[in-house]
Amino acid sequence: MSKVVPLKWEKSELLILDQRKLPGKIVWIRARNHETVARAIESLAVRGAPVIGIAAAYGVALAAKSTRATEAGISDAIARLLKTRPTGYNLFSALERMKHVLEHANGKVSLLLEREARAIHKEDAEMCHAIAEHGVSLMKSGETVLTYCNTGALATGGIGTALGVIRLAHTRKILKEVFACETRPVGQGARLTIWECAQEKIPATLICDNMIASLLATGKIHRVFVGADRIARNGDTSNKIGTRGLAVLARDAGVPFHVVAPSTTFDTNLKSGAEIVIEERKPEEILRGTPGLEKVKGVRVWNPAFDVTPANYITSFITERGVLSPPF
Amino acid sequence: MSKVVPLKWEKSELLILDQRKLPGKIVWIRARNHETVARAIESLAVRGAPVIGIAAAYGVALAAKSTRATEAGISDAIARLLKTRPTGYNLFSALERMKHVLEHANGKVSLLLEREARAIHKEDAEMCHAIAEHGVSLMKSGETVLTYCNTGALATGGIGTALGVIRLAHTRKILKEVFACETRPVGQGARLTIWECAQEKIPATLICDNMIASLLATGKIHRVFVGADRIARNGDTSNKIGTRGLAVLARDAGVPFHVVAPSTTFDTNLKSGAEIVIEERKPEEILRGTPGLEKVKGVRVWNPAFDVTPANYITSFITERGVLSPPF
Repeated sequence: MSKVVPLKWEKSELLILDQRKLPGKIVWIRARNHETVARAIESLAVRGAPVIGIAAAYGVALAAKSTRATEAGISDAIARLLKTRPTGYNLFSALERMKHVLEHANGKVSLLLEREARAIHKEDAEMCHAIAEHGVSLMKSGETVLTYCNTGALATGGIGTALGVIRLAHTRKILKEVFACETRPVGQGARLTIWECAQEKIPATLICDNMIASLLATGKIHRVFVGADRIARNGDTSNKIGTRGLAVLARDAGVPFHVVAPSTTFDTNLKSGAEIVIEERKPEEILRGTPGLEKVKGVRVWNPAFDVTPANYITSFITERGVLSPPF
Repeated sequence: MSKVVPLKWEKSELLILDQRKLPGKIVWIRARNHETVARAIESLAVRGAPVIGIAAAYGVALAAKSTRATEAGISDAIARLLKTRPTGYNLFSALERMKHVLEHANGKVSLLLEREARAIHKEDAEMCHAIAEHGVSLMKSGETVLTYCNTGALATGGIGTALGVIRLAHTRKILKEVFACETRPVGQGARLTIWECAQEKIPATLICDNMIASLLATGKIHRVFVGADRIARNGDTSNKIGTRGLAVLARDAGVPFHVVAPSTTFDTNLKSGAEIVIEERKPEEILRGTPGLEKVKGVRVWNPAFDVTPANYITSFITERGVLSPPF
């Protein structure tokens, strides 16, 4: 189990750990309605594809608890939550499940929706464990690995996906060390992965995103584990911006590159990565990293939040059902 | 000519634009002795391989101006300045020239050293122009290019190396746009290149270092121009950390990757990149990018300031003498 928990469901409210404040401060957001949940997702107070799905499901449960809740009102809440982030698939699949329960409810809608949200949460935790077992089975004792963004307990309902594998490898004493990339501009690696590892004394070293090629060239990295936000039928994978570059560099260096994600991340509606919508976020996210830059006139910024790694750069997918190697 | 100037020599003092304060503030450091110059180099107030060499040469001239100056004292000043940064070659070659003048001076040592420093400065400006002409000759009208770190007027005695090519392409109206990478952890791209481009209205777009693969995948980048700190006999090139990754990604995307540097950057004493000493800088440079992280216990950081790009990833070298293509 993980000491780190991103959400706490307390029946009439959802406590959301404000990940924007980490690692400096531990602040909990009390959400009593779906709008607060939606804003927490939009503002990245809660982030990571699996936990976004879980938070959104609890958001629907909160909407149903309102004394004035109607089926139309709950549907509106689902529609609102659907619009919060465009790229991750878990958000869509979790809300799809909530919608199904809503439409087929006999009687206590509120209770059934709460139960479904808790089930989504619990299933995700179980999935994390199953994934981690499959991931660890690939590793030899004493391995040093590289990871990207945050795919840990903070991003999921359990121990994490890519970082879940690393966590279990540490528990089993086969992990020597993990290197974590900063993950500009939001810094999920520097702020969250490094903090999570520190909580559980997993030996972790921080690098900047532009140090990956140098690190791989040292020969000390045995494999790369990353998460995924959405995976197309052909294996093309969208994940945090920078993943594609990491995959290309890993292949160039001959280091295995594993995508670690629950099978719910596979979107069979998508033929290839070309169909994946990439969210572009505000310039401020990048500009605020450089004091004074916002006042310089005429500065343009390109800020895609995700990228698509073509399937041919991926050594294997690690899911709760096992390890998938090419051809996919 | 460039509106941007990193150094001003005023006979009894050297004015150094404090690049750490950019783009927020314009602050000049008044150096009246070589120690102030040495500290400005060490603290990155002045940075960029060519301008470091120029600043160090003026530092020697300042040491010679002291009323108590002896040949031994000036030699000590040279030794002090030599120790400021380990990777760039221009520092060594500029100080070698100053040493030669010192050892062969007949009479007015102070005047001769000042003259030599000014000559190093002027020759660098002329070299920048010659380099830029060769670089622009490779380009077609309407090109969009990608650059890294800062290799502009701020880094040289003239219009710059890689950014000098881009500047001249803009003046000649054949440049559509330049994309600049942040260049973590010191941010020379975000702070300096973007600021330099804004001063001269060169259309520039900022990206994070982890967005390079995505940008190249769009197909809009025609070529990459980077600088160099030291080039070995076989063409292996050390430059700002992140350059190697950029080179690998450019080759993977089929985009030409050009190293732009004066011929003084070639260090014929080095057989290959394996012999290049890579400076590792303090963890704080990385940690300060993430508020609160310095207080998290047990955080380790790896902070190499440079990397080595193997020659086989380099499409060509652009120097003041022309364009060198493989085999080197």
